[in-house]
Amino acid sequence: MPLLVQKYGGTSVGSIERIKQVAAKIIRAKRVGHDVVVVVSAMAGETNRLLGLAHEIAEIPDEREKDVLLASGEQVSVALLTLALKEVGQPARSYLGHQVRIETDSAYGKARILSIDSTKIVQAIKAGDVVVVAGFQGVDEDDNITTLGRGGSDTSAVALAAFLNAEACEIYTDVDGVFTADPGICPQARKLARISYDEMIELASTGAKVLEIRSVEFAKNYSVPVHVRSTFSDVEGTWLVNEEESMNDVLVSGVASDKNEAKITLVRVPDQPGLAAQIFGPIADAHIVVDMIIQNASEDGTTDLTFTVPKADHKKALSIMEKALPAVHAKGITVDTEIAKVSVVGVGMRTHAGVAAKMFQVLAAEGINIEMISTSEIKISVVINAKYTELAVRVLHEAFIGKQGTV
Amino acid sequence: MPLLVQKYGGTSVGSIERIKQVAAKIIRAKRVGHDVVVVVSAMAGETNRLLGLAHEIAEIPDEREKDVLLASGEQVSVALLTLALKEVGQPARSYLGHQVRIETDSAYGKARILSIDSTKIVQAIKAGDVVVVAGFQGVDEDDNITTLGRGGSDTSAVALAAFLNAEACEIYTDVDGVFTADPGICPQARKLARISYDEMIELASTGAKVLEIRSVEFAKNYSVPVHVRSTFSDVEGTWLVNEEESMNDVLVSGVASDKNEAKITLVRVPDQPGLAAQIFGPIADAHIVVDMIIQNASEDGTTDLTFTVPKADHKKALSIMEKALPAVHAKGITVDTEIAKVSVVGVGMRTHAGVAAKMFQVLAAEGINIEMISTSEIKISVVINAKYTELAVRVLHEAFIGKQGTV
Repeated sequence: MPLLVQKYGGTSVGSIERIKQVAAKIIRAKRVGHDVVVVVSAMAGETNRLLGLAHEIAEIPDEREKDVLLASGEQVSVALLTLALKEVGQPARSYLGHQVRIETDSAYGKARILSIDSTKIVQAIKAGDVVVVAGFQGVDEDDNITTLGRGGSDTSAVALAAFLNAEACEIYTDVDGVFTADPGICPQARKLARISYDEMIELASTGAKVLEIRSVEFAKNYSVPVHVRSTFSDVEGTWLVNEEESMNDVLVSGVASDKNEAKITLVRVPDQPGLAAQIFGPIADAHIVVDMIIQNASEDGTTDLTFTVPKADHKKALSIMEKALPAVHAKGITVDTEIAKVSVVGVGMRTHAGVAAKMFQVLAAEGINIEMISTSEIKISVVINAKYTELAVRVLHEAFIGKQGTV
Repeated sequence: MPLLVQKYGGTSVGSIERIKQVAAKIIRAKRVGHDVVVVVSAMAGETNRLLGLAHEIAEIPDEREKDVLLASGEQVSVALLTLALKEVGQPARSYLGHQVRIETDSAYGKARILSIDSTKIVQAIKAGDVVVVAGFQGVDEDDNITTLGRGGSDTSAVALAAFLNAEACEIYTDVDGVFTADPGICPQARKLARISYDEMIELASTGAKVLEIRSVEFAKNYSVPVHVRSTFSDVEGTWLVNEEESMNDVLVSGVASDKNEAKITLVRVPDQPGLAAQIFGPIADAHIVVDMIIQNASEDGTTDLTFTVPKADHKKALSIMEKALPAVHAKGITVDTEIAKVSVVGVGMRTHAGVAAKMFQVLAAEGINIEMISTSEIKISVVINAKYTELAVRVLHEAFIGKQGTV
């Protein structure tokens, strides 16, 4: 029978009532002729409750023990879902990360999956069981418990689909699929029927939080068809697939925005070799992720260097920069937390020129000033004043997508 | 350094504040020169919370999945205690049942420990770590999660002490030790300095709920010195040790009572071979534990057969008996839930006659009727009307222990 991997998030298993509904949904898939492997997250709120306990003890809890703690959340939900399946007569069996050897590296809190031993899962499927696997967790080569980071259950599901050679990986969530823009901002936004892995990666990294970026990379590497759809309805969602010829006809698949970054500028630093390393070395050592970096040399041999960091980290970054100021001979620092990154994404850009120019025109027509620009092969991101975020998304959607008819 | 295994129950780790206090206690033991392996239970209330979730799904939850669910409770407490130790600078490391291969049989919910792989624990101790091991849980040979039943953490601790060849196993609890009687019933009751394993086993099986009986059997089999003491003070508690010569001078070490049984009588059953099997087979099949059984043949070829079962199971036992009635040709059934079992225990009985006679006299002098009697080499139990329980304990304690001076 064709094998489906289904993943249900914390909201989908957030109460006993919902767990029973998920069980019913799984059984429907089984009845129409699928073998089913299910991956579940911890019940909604549980991970935060556990983190709260850890933080009552330590401001920065030990990483290894924090993973032991957090992995208990998924252990509870796999057991409850399996109980719910068995209670209505569906043979089922739960497995934890260590039981099917979801082996990861030892990077506690953000481990990467290296391999999965599918033996027990395949046996259970052959015996007619629905197999329920704990998401988010694994073990390293020495059997230490690891977790994959927020959204890690998506990666668990995609990895299982890859290692089990499943027909598809269904990600059940509380939205109907991937949209051309956030419908809360842009009423014109429509659900995409299909999107390429690369576009989804760009959208995920530019603020569209439907799927964790690492799971999409995994899906791309193993060509796993991923179906993002709603737990609460049976309508088709959005398929993540390899890039297809027809996708190139669409210039822009989606418009995303992200208000969670802050902008830091080092004013008039001497433009000399080794400067960037001197500045970003200590930032990286503090585990602060820098997103965009812009540097423009000017005539007088100095340069303004601007970069963005997560808003939550900007004070830490600032204090690091202030210490570095004398060494890099900067004249000063400015910080702006009232910024937004707005991005347009589409594989069509690879073969069509003029997307950037049109994007700048559209924003200029609204009087929106562009503070930073960053591009990839299939994405253009601009940083603007945060107050224009929603306006920018709407006008860009209107210009690139609104008139294309059905996407 | 001499190795101590310490076990802390759910009340001792019932809140973050208490977990921090336990960490301080462990560090004191480490500072005075002990290596320490700690076994913890789930935080107080957690096991019941998880069971409540399971019972929202199924009246009789699947045993395998119930164990997966319940084992998560100890996972949380080992992580939190290890975090608390590390936070105050004490190197520490948690281990779950599967990580140190606490291998058990596959009897979910009441598994027995077969072996423990001490390699990782010994390594961690050598590295200076306090090792924190999840109690109550293990894995079977196929890596399925198992639990040891209520009070199983005591058994985990004693088993670890045995396999690690520890100097002693300290069981920290909310009482000061093992008493000659329940101090709540009998103000004369005193803490015992030492008690033999056999006496403790009899006391545990007759209602004194300080230690789970299986852990005491384990301690006896491996001659592990067990020290039962209070989490909340530093006074010496009670040592469980091998029987010593001097113990024989004490006729009775303790008086225990148990109101959790019900008495069922099958009236006038034909006294013929195979009868007991016919009656107790279906009771055993329903996993009901029968305690005392009394049968007296009478002249007319019939017999009254009386037995006791846990009060919680008496309705189930009754409905099984009613079905069996025609087959065994009984004239009727009577049930009494208003009973108590009162027991006196002491290794001195082995070498001294007359304890039973004195016990019956003492009870008769108070007008307390004896409904059933059961004896072992070092114990005499009687079933009486529940309303006399406290009175019986007090007069027996006064008669056998009260005047012996210091125990």
